Amino acid sequence: MTIAVSLPAADKTEWWCKMLGDLMPDWEITPFDKVTDPAKVTYAVVWRPATGQMAKFPNLKAIVSIGAGIDHVLDDHEVPRHVPIIRTVGTDLTQRMKEYVALHVLRHHRRLPDLQASQAQSKWEAIIVPPATERRVGVMGLGNLGAAAAQLLSTIGFQTVGWSRSPKDVPGVTTYSGSDGFGEFLEGTEILVCLLPLTDSTRGIMDANVFNRLKRGASIINAARGPHLVDGDLLLALESGQISHATLDVFHVEPLPSEHPFWAHSRITVTPHVASMIDAPTGSKIIARNIRIFEETGTVPDLADVERGY
Amino acid sequence: MTIAVSLPAADKTEWWCKMLGDLMPDWEITPFDKVTDPAKVTYAVVWRPATGQMAKFPNLKAIVSIGAGIDHVLDDHEVPRHVPIIRTVGTDLTQRMKEYVALHVLRHHRRLPDLQASQAQSKWEAIIVPPATERRVGVMGLGNLGAAAAQLLSTIGFQTVGWSRSPKDVPGVTTYSGSDGFGEFLEGTEILVCLLPLTDSTRGIMDANVFNRLKRGASIINAARGPHLVDGDLLLALESGQISHATLDVFHVEPLPSEHPFWAHSRITVTPHVASMIDAPTGSKIIARNIRIFEETGTVPDLADVERGY
Repeated sequence: MTIAVSLPAADKTEWWCKMLGDLMPDWEITPFDKVTDPAKVTYAVVWRPATGQMAKFPNLKAIVSIGAGIDHVLDDHEVPRHVPIIRTVGTDLTQRMKEYVALHVLRHHRRLPDLQASQAQSKWEAIIVPPATERRVGVMGLGNLGAAAAQLLSTIGFQTVGWSRSPKDVPGVTTYSGSDGFGEFLEGTEILVCLLPLTDSTRGIMDANVFNRLKRGASIINAARGPHLVDGDLLLALESGQISHATLDVFHVEPLPSEHPFWAHSRITVTPHVASMIDAPTGSKIIARNIRIFEETGTVPDLADVERGY
Repeated sequence: MTIAVSLPAADKTEWWCKMLGDLMPDWEITPFDKVTDPAKVTYAVVWRPATGQMAKFPNLKAIVSIGAGIDHVLDDHEVPRHVPIIRTVGTDLTQRMKEYVALHVLRHHRRLPDLQASQAQSKWEAIIVPPATERRVGVMGLGNLGAAAAQLLSTIGFQTVGWSRSPKDVPGVTTYSGSDGFGEFLEGTEILVCLLPLTDSTRGIMDANVFNRLKRGASIINAARGPHLVDGDLLLALESGQISHATLDVFHVEPLPSEHPFWAHSRITVTPHVASMIDAPTGSKIIARNIRIFEETGTVPDLADVERGY
């Protein structure tokens, strides 16, 4: 029985093979391109796999996404849709995402970019903002990561609202759902955080229409997937002042090409997809446990809904 | 009966007089320099009052500090030491300080200054840090503000330790006290936050000796008072790499003089004393209530210990 592993960088693939190998000594763990007998591969552990590779494994029991999202798996249109996809989530991943969201929401709330612009000019210019209790922050997406982030924002003191496709309860957070609740969710929101799964219905969700419904001068934070954002609409909204600042961790193309206008924009903060990373030592433990449970029971709690797309 | 008011800027003094006047119609509220009968002044409401002014009011019942600290009142050595000093604290002030501390601790923890330096060069360079659960943060000073900030850091997930002169209990925080506990408090601390009151025993507490006991590459945040820090020692510790970054909200002289080396230092973040500001509308309500309670009972819960200095 073989577990085949594929990540975009060969050295990372090797590293994950080693980590998984240490934890699963009864299995053969092999990079995709070193598989000798494709019929033996029963699990594929992947991050952004190349198109068409997985279709070569006829006996796949499950695909394991190295991450919470499965969009990067479904991008491969040749993957048989009946193969279950196991998501990799864990407290470590959730913790990192909570930190990223809290940091960047607080940074916009307290207008730190403006204070730093003053420092660059040696200018002592106090900016007094209202307390967080008077600031409305909206979190789109209330899965593991979104719900945890929204709850922390509420604990910090923000007026926190959340939106998801289906109704969700999150302590301390006023929640809205579906297209009916979207307008009310956006209204008065000053900092908008995207933690949605990437599906056909969320692609391009952050566009001019949404920006115009936020409070004037709002800021946005995208820690989900690049294609949630319509890049050109953001640039126009920044120009008009409807949006005052954006912090982006994810992009249509990653790494973000060096000629992309986001890099040098004074009111866009670019971070290189670091909001919540699974490192191999932590992630391999979660994956080894999930494969063991899947072997025994035929399912796991973190199974994706392939139809729904997350 | 007169309440005399003094802040460093005349327009701010006027503003506070107006706010207090609206809430306390039975009192005469007057800027220091417009008092006609000093004998009638029973309360002085002050922020950084000029030396010798309060000694001219022979019938002062209490001095009200517009802030949590009283060091700026005691700087006036002519103030009679038997006059009680009322501190101004409130949930609003605590909320703002919690936000500031959480923001800047997270910013250092996630190495945002380094990520922003990469952005300035259009460089996609991921920096993966351990989760907050593996990062030790130390808060010096566990009064209203320090305890609240430490508790929030613990909720965010940090390994949080606290230090104060006398033993304190703060939920989720490992606390140390006195000179005996100081070494253990500092050991292994990677982000040090100062929220101490300024007294003779805390002046200059952040010096080379303390920096050398922190984990190499630690960062510091001073949101208390400028004189807690030995400026020259910080510059040397940044140069040696013992300290990797400092965020400073308070300075020996404020506004920070434009020629001061902190302004242009790439690893010092200067904010213009904005961590926690009392605005006149909120502060005047707290002060009006405190004066009313003091008139009725001769004391208030937020009375400072003048001997102790906070």
